[in-house]
Amino acid sequence: MPTLHARSALAAESIFSVMSRLAVQHGAVNLGQGFPAGAPPDFLLDALRAGAGVTDQYTAPAGLPALREALAADLGVRSEQVSVTCGATEALHALADALYGPGDEVLMFEPVFDVYRPQAQLSGARPVPVPMTLTRDGWSPDLDALERLVTPRTRALLVNNPHNPTGHVFTPQELARLVDVARTHDLWIVADEVYDELYFAGPPTPLRTLAPERTFTVGSAGKRLEATGWRVGWVVSPVGVSPGVSGLHQWATFCAPAPLQAAVAAALPVARARDFYGELRAAYGARMRLLASGLRALGLEVQVPGGTYFLTALAPGVDARRLVEEGGVAVIPGDAFYAQGAAPEGLVRLAFCKPQEEILRALERLEAYLGA
Amino acid sequence: MPTLHARSALAAESIFSVMSRLAVQHGAVNLGQGFPAGAPPDFLLDALRAGAGVTDQYTAPAGLPALREALAADLGVRSEQVSVTCGATEALHALADALYGPGDEVLMFEPVFDVYRPQAQLSGARPVPVPMTLTRDGWSPDLDALERLVTPRTRALLVNNPHNPTGHVFTPQELARLVDVARTHDLWIVADEVYDELYFAGPPTPLRTLAPERTFTVGSAGKRLEATGWRVGWVVSPVGVSPGVSGLHQWATFCAPAPLQAAVAAALPVARARDFYGELRAAYGARMRLLASGLRALGLEVQVPGGTYFLTALAPGVDARRLVEEGGVAVIPGDAFYAQGAAPEGLVRLAFCKPQEEILRALERLEAYLGA
Repeated sequence: MPTLHARSALAAESIFSVMSRLAVQHGAVNLGQGFPAGAPPDFLLDALRAGAGVTDQYTAPAGLPALREALAADLGVRSEQVSVTCGATEALHALADALYGPGDEVLMFEPVFDVYRPQAQLSGARPVPVPMTLTRDGWSPDLDALERLVTPRTRALLVNNPHNPTGHVFTPQELARLVDVARTHDLWIVADEVYDELYFAGPPTPLRTLAPERTFTVGSAGKRLEATGWRVGWVVSPVGVSPGVSGLHQWATFCAPAPLQAAVAAALPVARARDFYGELRAAYGARMRLLASGLRALGLEVQVPGGTYFLTALAPGVDARRLVEEGGVAVIPGDAFYAQGAAPEGLVRLAFCKPQEEILRALERLEAYLGA
Repeated sequence: MPTLHARSALAAESIFSVMSRLAVQHGAVNLGQGFPAGAPPDFLLDALRAGAGVTDQYTAPAGLPALREALAADLGVRSEQVSVTCGATEALHALADALYGPGDEVLMFEPVFDVYRPQAQLSGARPVPVPMTLTRDGWSPDLDALERLVTPRTRALLVNNPHNPTGHVFTPQELARLVDVARTHDLWIVADEVYDELYFAGPPTPLRTLAPERTFTVGSAGKRLEATGWRVGWVVSPVGVSPGVSGLHQWATFCAPAPLQAAVAAALPVARARDFYGELRAAYGARMRLLASGLRALGLEVQVPGGTYFLTALAPGVDARRLVEEGGVAVIPGDAFYAQGAAPEGLVRLAFCKPQEEILRALERLEAYLGA
């Protein structure tokens, strides 16, 4: 039999899928994969039910016009800048295709969301990690290292803000320095801002407002509207560049799911009008504080996030696979976000987009497991 | 400003999108892009409405278990062989990633469905066209040419059956010879069988039944269930190979749209039980004959398809772009399916998955345009 292509070495099951599978298998509380435990809001589901039978055939690859316009209004950009994709994952994939290839280097902050590295490698480029430093005060990007790591081969800087898994929200000063580096060395900026509405102190500054000429913004209806399985994401490109992005996306999936695009188009202005995101921030902020204080009470060092629905903690000696099997709690081990061997000892990521009862149950089980 | 990567040269808008856009712009009857004019069947839409709020978060990359099982039952394979993707386009994309790369060659029958060539090129491989011969008797694959075109670099043979755009259904003898070539030279077979239920004489033989050890089957809920915008497709891999396919798909889109996967899972057995596909064949067969006889009455040479919802015809001297603008009928020009300059003079593809009135109106307009 012929063999698969060498790039299939990148086909390993992601740690998120592995931990969710193990959680089901062992009846564990799943604070691993980042998806909400509940259903999406009624205004989104009602839009889906109402639209069934109306928008079911191919849309243009760039997206349903109504959705591109709704996004343009929501984000303060032009609809021609918007390319709708099958989730933020495909948005990042289309940008990897559009921006880099063999011989190129891509800077990304480590710990790194696990999709970035294989996507860069599939495009032929080399992912270059830029350290996030962890101190008693929490996480911060090492911007001196960023400058040192730029080479003539560097094509782009991938910035996840708010940052998954650390929850760090880049300060305006940090962003200004990033932009300065990108301008000095003529780099593209890929701003993965899927948690743009999920912050607990000040709102993150969209990078496109600081460097509109070189920033691609990635967003996600699934993250915003509590429907991670819907696969409706987007890229906002600098003016004039979006046909290239949509044109490459058409060869990967042709277009995003049409009935879900239509429902998201209807739901976006409703979410804004009802302050749905504000309610979400309040609800998740409370659960974040519950989880953080509970973990501290167990003696763990916790980094309080400025955004996302994750926090990190140091649980030295805890093995995430043994924890899900023997302790009944699924978390994501820190090494999933690092090149081999580089993770801080005992680092874990916990999701708090889960009901309060589950968070409390996880804390009880952790107490029993750590005590044993 | 930095430039886009060289592969963005492949980002040109597909001819299908171009013609659909021009059709809207000029108020033309759209016999171009292959999507049904009507809504999907009620049993699919009811399943979607009933399931809203139940299956909205990430599924495993391989797909919702209920859908993998429904597909396994429908296709007579094991559920572990099934990888669910964002449409057949992404299924083909994942296979391009999994099977070939720089230095490899991929055989594909020309005229070629327009996605195959750029997908092979994006993977780094070289698409090698194998001619379909057009005679008074219709289309047939040149299998002697196929044998001659195999080289030590050939990795895979991409077979679209029923074949778009020609409508050719490969005979059992033709398929046996294809399999023989693939076995002799140890090639993978990628069988794009999205029109597996849309045939007008005998049903096509699934290639996986002839060469299960080396055949990947690509299918599409959008084509089967009249919902081309849903983006639910699949790959059936040889036993043991599917983790590689699902694993690469996870880096492109992570998973297919969850609520649509759930609705398709519910609808597949209903479609089979109600003989929905048989009804579709009867309806489309009647429209195909209406279009074919109308075109012949206008003096065009028509190739009657054995499957798909397309037919080809020779309309020498007709320019498709002028036809949509001046004649009010959108068709796909044959050269969209050929390497530059290789298309038979006047070849066009027409879709008959449109209401009878539209087909009649298109015939009237063609008569006026050709007479003028």
